[in-house]
Amino acid sequence: MAPILLNCLGSDHNEYIKQPVQVKNPYLDTMEEDILYHFSLSTKTHDLPQMFGDIKFVCVGGSSNRMKAFAQFIHKELKLSGNPEELRDICEGTDRYCMYKVGQVLSISHGMGVPSISIMLHELIKLLHHAQCRDVILFRLGTSGGIGLVPGTVVITEKAVDYSFKPQFEQVVLGKVITRSTELDEGVANELLQCSSELEKFPTVIGNTLCTDDFYEGQGRLDGALCSFSHEDKLEYLRKAHDAGVRNIEMESTVFAAMCRICGLKAAVICVALLNRFDGDQITSPHDVLVEFQERPQVLVSHFIKKRLGLVV
Amino acid sequence: MAPILLNCLGSDHNEYIKQPVQVKNPYLDTMEEDILYHFSLSTKTHDLPQMFGDIKFVCVGGSSNRMKAFAQFIHKELKLSGNPEELRDICEGTDRYCMYKVGQVLSISHGMGVPSISIMLHELIKLLHHAQCRDVILFRLGTSGGIGLVPGTVVITEKAVDYSFKPQFEQVVLGKVITRSTELDEGVANELLQCSSELEKFPTVIGNTLCTDDFYEGQGRLDGALCSFSHEDKLEYLRKAHDAGVRNIEMESTVFAAMCRICGLKAAVICVALLNRFDGDQITSPHDVLVEFQERPQVLVSHFIKKRLGLVV
Repeated sequence: MAPILLNCLGSDHNEYIKQPVQVKNPYLDTMEEDILYHFSLSTKTHDLPQMFGDIKFVCVGGSSNRMKAFAQFIHKELKLSGNPEELRDICEGTDRYCMYKVGQVLSISHGMGVPSISIMLHELIKLLHHAQCRDVILFRLGTSGGIGLVPGTVVITEKAVDYSFKPQFEQVVLGKVITRSTELDEGVANELLQCSSELEKFPTVIGNTLCTDDFYEGQGRLDGALCSFSHEDKLEYLRKAHDAGVRNIEMESTVFAAMCRICGLKAAVICVALLNRFDGDQITSPHDVLVEFQERPQVLVSHFIKKRLGLVV
Repeated sequence: MAPILLNCLGSDHNEYIKQPVQVKNPYLDTMEEDILYHFSLSTKTHDLPQMFGDIKFVCVGGSSNRMKAFAQFIHKELKLSGNPEELRDICEGTDRYCMYKVGQVLSISHGMGVPSISIMLHELIKLLHHAQCRDVILFRLGTSGGIGLVPGTVVITEKAVDYSFKPQFEQVVLGKVITRSTELDEGVANELLQCSSELEKFPTVIGNTLCTDDFYEGQGRLDGALCSFSHEDKLEYLRKAHDAGVRNIEMESTVFAAMCRICGLKAAVICVALLNRFDGDQITSPHDVLVEFQERPQVLVSHFIKKRLGLVV
């Protein structure tokens, strides 16, 4: 497997996505059974190729309720048969993540933060590999804090950057820190922006996304249990981020970009900005406004998928 | 507020826990409203002192199902009135965390990984502060991978250590990395060990706990989607960890210890080892065995609480 993988990664972009989803682990195919523990699935107890072999689009997001709502939404959008209210959680054997399959679309929750989405991505990429999926595109649909944006603006990530605004992700492997690139697929990002132009429903921009390991101190909020900096310090950090092309802040994009890139998967991050961090820290919009904001990445990705499936021109 | 806080932190341990739960943020008490967004609670819409003022024990754990089960279990253990099956999730307005109040005990889920528990801890500490709680002890009840332990062994954390086995937590604040101590309360740890001796139900040890940001590469697993090291490299890392006093690996203890310490809260981490990592990476024990293992930290902490409340001698 290893030589094929190296060829894939070294080849032209359009070429390698025709390959099956690749893991980068020489041990995996020698294992008698692979238990995807946090999905409550296994290669011995589940026929993964039969269950997932046709998957072309994987949509992930932090909240389990939101990813269930997305599954029901895309079910209606794709005009599939059956009752969208009766979709079954494939991961019902665990409460770590939820997972719904709707035609060729998989909708999965990943919780909050890099470690939580990283566990999900390891098991998802193994699942897609075991299921022999091909030409899969991954989307992260999230919420975020905007920097200099009107609340409700959708940000398609150009580069996922770390706290020093570098497009990299630091991964600890056996006690050593290694650095991975976090570049995302430019073609998919531009195609998503084009979808937004066609929809004309909400403002959408392409910009860099700052990924932090903390919602409060790491994002310069003044309203956490701990705060050792001033309002001016905070604004200075946000201004620096804005100067570096950052338009929103969330907590999962770097590892998502890094892992998809290593495994040759096309990927995009689409987050709505719930507030403008230059104006405040607390999320004060009414519940119904926030619900509508959170639907915007879903509407955008749904349009993308429908276009790719030839359901809209 | 700030001078009082400084006095608290500088004073004798037994003295400062008589103080109310302290935040370390001078801005907080100047805010007209504090929205605890990820709990779906607010100082304006909820009477936090009335709802939570009597809390003395806060038990947190990753899985929402497990923390609901713990709430029902402690309800029976404390012989409280009412039906434990009908406990209401106080955070039902959101799916980020769940929260149950059972007498003076609060049971909350925190998801997986440092960022996820960190958001919960910021909002929990603010909640305890707003509710004017005093003398609160926090427990993290978790699952972990054991190092050189029989599966099912319960580990009470002496020191939470990072990937380099140092008892510290690196926090990014406005783009700068600062280091915080992760020492836990020795008295509570010893009291928990004593509880285990009294119960005589399962093996329990005090040891260091390695906290990682990743379940696969970061913990030296050979079964992730990515693996670039050998079986021997893995064993060498685990042996080094064992030599440094590490007896289990999980993903939340460092930030839990660091934040509790800063805010003058007594805290303990109690995790069951689901497997011995020297023997393998996958969690292969049958479901019913794993369920019983996960109940062990609950049984231990329940005994501790009952002793503190004078319900057992």
